[in-house]
Amino acid sequence: MIQEIAKRLEMLRAELCREHLGAYIFNSSDPHNSEYTADRWKGREWISGFNGSAGTAVVTLNSAALWTDSRYFIAAEEQLKGTEYQLMKLKIEGTPTIAEWLGKELADADSKEVGTDGTTHTAAAISQLKDELRQQGGLTLRTNFDVLQRIWKARPSMPLDTIMLQPIKWAGETTKQKLTRIRKALREVHADGMLMSQLDDIAWTLNLRGCDVHCCPVFISYLLIGSCQVTLFVDEHKLTAEVKSYLAEQDITVRPYETAGDALQRWGEWNILIDPDEVNEALARQVKANEIISKPSPVAAMKAVKNEAEQQGMRNAMLRDGIALVKWLHWLKPAVEAGGQTEICISNKLEQLRSEQPLYRGLSFDTIAGYEEHGAIVHYEATPETDKPLEPRGLLLVDSGAQYQDGTTDITRTIALGPLTDEQRKVYTLVLKGHIDLQLLHFPDGATGTQLDAIARQPLWQAGLNYLHGTGHGVGAYLNVHEGPHQIRMEWKPTPLRKGMTVTDEPGIYLEGRFGVRTENVLLIREVKGVREVNEAGACGRFLCFETLTLCPIDTVPILPELLTREEKDWLNAYHAEVYEKIAPHLNDEERLWLQEATSHI
Amino acid sequence: MIQEIAKRLEMLRAELCREHLGAYIFNSSDPHNSEYTADRWKGREWISGFNGSAGTAVVTLNSAALWTDSRYFIAAEEQLKGTEYQLMKLKIEGTPTIAEWLGKELADADSKEVGTDGTTHTAAAISQLKDELRQQGGLTLRTNFDVLQRIWKARPSMPLDTIMLQPIKWAGETTKQKLTRIRKALREVHADGMLMSQLDDIAWTLNLRGCDVHCCPVFISYLLIGSCQVTLFVDEHKLTAEVKSYLAEQDITVRPYETAGDALQRWGEWNILIDPDEVNEALARQVKANEIISKPSPVAAMKAVKNEAEQQGMRNAMLRDGIALVKWLHWLKPAVEAGGQTEICISNKLEQLRSEQPLYRGLSFDTIAGYEEHGAIVHYEATPETDKPLEPRGLLLVDSGAQYQDGTTDITRTIALGPLTDEQRKVYTLVLKGHIDLQLLHFPDGATGTQLDAIARQPLWQAGLNYLHGTGHGVGAYLNVHEGPHQIRMEWKPTPLRKGMTVTDEPGIYLEGRFGVRTENVLLIREVKGVREVNEAGACGRFLCFETLTLCPIDTVPILPELLTREEKDWLNAYHAEVYEKIAPHLNDEERLWLQEATSHI
Repeated sequence: MIQEIAKRLEMLRAELCREHLGAYIFNSSDPHNSEYTADRWKGREWISGFNGSAGTAVVTLNSAALWTDSRYFIAAEEQLKGTEYQLMKLKIEGTPTIAEWLGKELADADSKEVGTDGTTHTAAAISQLKDELRQQGGLTLRTNFDVLQRIWKARPSMPLDTIMLQPIKWAGETTKQKLTRIRKALREVHADGMLMSQLDDIAWTLNLRGCDVHCCPVFISYLLIGSCQVTLFVDEHKLTAEVKSYLAEQDITVRPYETAGDALQRWGEWNILIDPDEVNEALARQVKANEIISKPSPVAAMKAVKNEAEQQGMRNAMLRDGIALVKWLHWLKPAVEAGGQTEICISNKLEQLRSEQPLYRGLSFDTIAGYEEHGAIVHYEATPETDKPLEPRGLLLVDSGAQYQDGTTDITRTIALGPLTDEQRKVYTLVLKGHIDLQLLHFPDGATGTQLDAIARQPLWQAGLNYLHGTGHGVGAYLNVHEGPHQIRMEWKPTPLRKGMTVTDEPGIYLEGRFGVRTENVLLIREVKGVREVNEAGACGRFLCFETLTLCPIDTVPILPELLTREEKDWLNAYHAEVYEKIAPHLNDEERLWLQEATSHI
Repeated sequence: MIQEIAKRLEMLRAELCREHLGAYIFNSSDPHNSEYTADRWKGREWISGFNGSAGTAVVTLNSAALWTDSRYFIAAEEQLKGTEYQLMKLKIEGTPTIAEWLGKELADADSKEVGTDGTTHTAAAISQLKDELRQQGGLTLRTNFDVLQRIWKARPSMPLDTIMLQPIKWAGETTKQKLTRIRKALREVHADGMLMSQLDDIAWTLNLRGCDVHCCPVFISYLLIGSCQVTLFVDEHKLTAEVKSYLAEQDITVRPYETAGDALQRWGEWNILIDPDEVNEALARQVKANEIISKPSPVAAMKAVKNEAEQQGMRNAMLRDGIALVKWLHWLKPAVEAGGQTEICISNKLEQLRSEQPLYRGLSFDTIAGYEEHGAIVHYEATPETDKPLEPRGLLLVDSGAQYQDGTTDITRTIALGPLTDEQRKVYTLVLKGHIDLQLLHFPDGATGTQLDAIARQPLWQAGLNYLHGTGHGVGAYLNVHEGPHQIRMEWKPTPLRKGMTVTDEPGIYLEGRFGVRTENVLLIREVKGVREVNEAGACGRFLCFETLTLCPIDTVPILPELLTREEKDWLNAYHAEVYEKIAPHLNDEERLWLQEATSHI
């Protein structure tokens, strides 16, 4: 692999010389600003060998560097070893920005021009990057040259998988109703129409699902909404007769994917909303309208609030997912004690058990199963080279999720495979405290995730511990496992948390080279009933709280009970009683006995 | 007063007609973006009768409205009663912005032009207001016409009070050292110089203090810093011979206050930093430079971090303030029981006791003493009309502070004057929990106040209660009682909390028409010692915590001990032990016995 990367860099540099470019930037996205992309857009992985979901590779004629965030520091270090890439750790003091690094690297270069593929960056990102580069000795940016087309001979083609209807019993709202709401939101910002390019927004709006992207039930397309016309830009081969007639019923015109740019050049209405943080730069550049309304798309915020049908679907999916998880947990320890199990084996077993559940449609992300020191690698994915045999001791961290047609799941459990150290118990219990404290929280309607984030961290902070990733993200309803626009995290996210939103609760602690702990449930935001109205200068009328959707026991073996408050213990016992009550009826006698034990009061 | 306001509005409208203006906006600030201003700039109070520290009056030819925030809703309602002003409650759903309201009010007006005095708004505020007005049917804004000069016959003149040196033993850093640091910060953003207009920043930089503004030891001036020259624009009559020779020693030129604009027009260097959120629009408009660097002034962040001398000064000031407070608390209940005491009487008594302390220089803000339902008015100030007799029952909320030459104080205590209701005890205890929980918190270096805010609110949220004001603000070292740029509040404040900053901790609950509770200490941010370094993906090395500076017992009578955790009780007992230990030596026998009782363990 190291030699392969060297060869690819050589080909790249030959092209850079030919085009008189000083450097090239490879990011991790696709023309739809996706977090997970179809293989065709995995150019950053192809050029660097680093396969994390987030990262940017930058190559000059004689140097190369890769920026990624704390989730991937350890994985990236491993994967870049032996290549000429220098690892740049984001948000760590002293790490230069891409522009700063390029400013130094290209100080004496012949060409001060940097290339990148404008279709894989949002318009806002390119505009910011251009500004930053200009300030570094006047570097310029060329965005209309996709170097991968020249050098990546075996580049995967556009995915052509079939698109499916998402029935109304799970979607809960018709496409017509959704389009009416979207048009109302557009009118509020005086927009005649919008270009939608976020794939999960399109799937949600149209009540359609695809399988173009690994783990994400979306399909590659653009949706152009005008005041009286809607056009879907998609490869027609992907549409079944049923979907075609469904789209016709909705008065939605179908045009080839490649023609979205042409349509934007021939836009017939006065103005159009283009979300600069969503639409890619190459497409945004083509818009011809009297006015471009540069505002956030209203669709993500609509999609984030789940309707009753979606909420019930999520609950049903969580129950089936919980059944599979309990069967797996029941199997796990004896299997490890019997020997021969590895991180990959137990992940496969979990996948198999999930796939036996009705409405299963695949994983929602690649399972992270990290044993002992691998648990400290936040987004670890076992490979045949790293795959570690499990022994009956220490901690196993498993973060996994599945797609069911009625909902998406995401759960992390850290499991004691045998004897633990005192430090492991203490860290486990502190993480659990943070996890529980957030679920116990009541908060005023309109609070943001940034305001709530410290509640999950406080028990860890008191012990001088912290984690650098977010505490929670939205989860789709048979859609992407990471959904915005709301989040619970340290960084400022202005979107308020609202009734009907899903959000994860996943504090963790990672002690490099030793072990990691994370505990994660998916929560649904609900209204607190029966809160009296008080005066407006003091109390607010409406408070929100969380309903726990995830149903799966939390390992009680590592807990140091003296570190938990009465309230925290009560929460855990009530949660376990609910898990038992809901899941036990679906188990055989042996599994049920195991679950009874696993959910017994502490 | 109601008739007086009507007469003033009549005069105003005659001027609006003469100038062909459709409306006029009166805000609460001065040319220095001050929160508290000299009387000369209290035009909004003069035209509306509302005397809160924050509020904006807008008057058209046939309507008038006043915007203010939740702290003043009740007070404003009282004060505007009978006038034609409509109260506009900020941050309450349905309240229009000033621009939206003007858009409607001026829809059919002859003149679509709005006037305001550009010297009393920051450049950024005017730029935003212009944008907002433009979007409301193309309203325009005229900023070079100060209508008050025409209609406010008895307008107070510029204050002319004497300026004093702040000795190095309290300032802790020479002006030369401060100027060196400021110039270094300017170089980092490639600025040749800056205009400083924030009065407390100027006082801090020059180690000078004034008394131009009620409760704020500042003096009206501008400071122009160039790469090798510093000019102070101030009325020379205010300078003593000592201050004149001190300024000469520092190579600081003195020019008349009115000539700052001229100097900006003749700016001789390449560029200049103008903080658009600090410098007033009228002045910013006059700057002639090749480039204007529009960035935050670096001075507020420097001033916020107190040096060792300032920290020790604050501790000493807090001790003397605590002695005065304890003497007052010891006097209070018997005095109330004896009868004849009112909100104003007990405030005067407190002021008198404080004034007996060495280095006392005045109040740091007007005392808020609110008995029973007046305690629910967040920024209540008793007037002869509202002054309420105190009886030996219910809750008295007293928020007060003083200026000493070595430090500024700010403290709130809520005191049981006699029997309380269960609800009062519960609310009191929940507020105390929030107050203590914040002081107990450890947090990573670099966290912002927005992230910490929920810690003080959580116990209240759980009970369906909330407060709409911030949890904490910086406090000056013999400077303004409200200091930025950091804050602890719900709204996003990106400035990280750093070692050496002061910040208040003041949660509260206000039940309109019944009672209010607030408990406030001033805290100093310190480093947690002895935290081990863990890996960068997990724990951060440096954690911060709070040292409590305020020294004064917290009333234990209203506490419901069963609502406090062991940790919270321990904090309270340890705090009270410290208060007793430090203050008791300065009391007479009777006071000491009282303090012993007041600080006894719960």
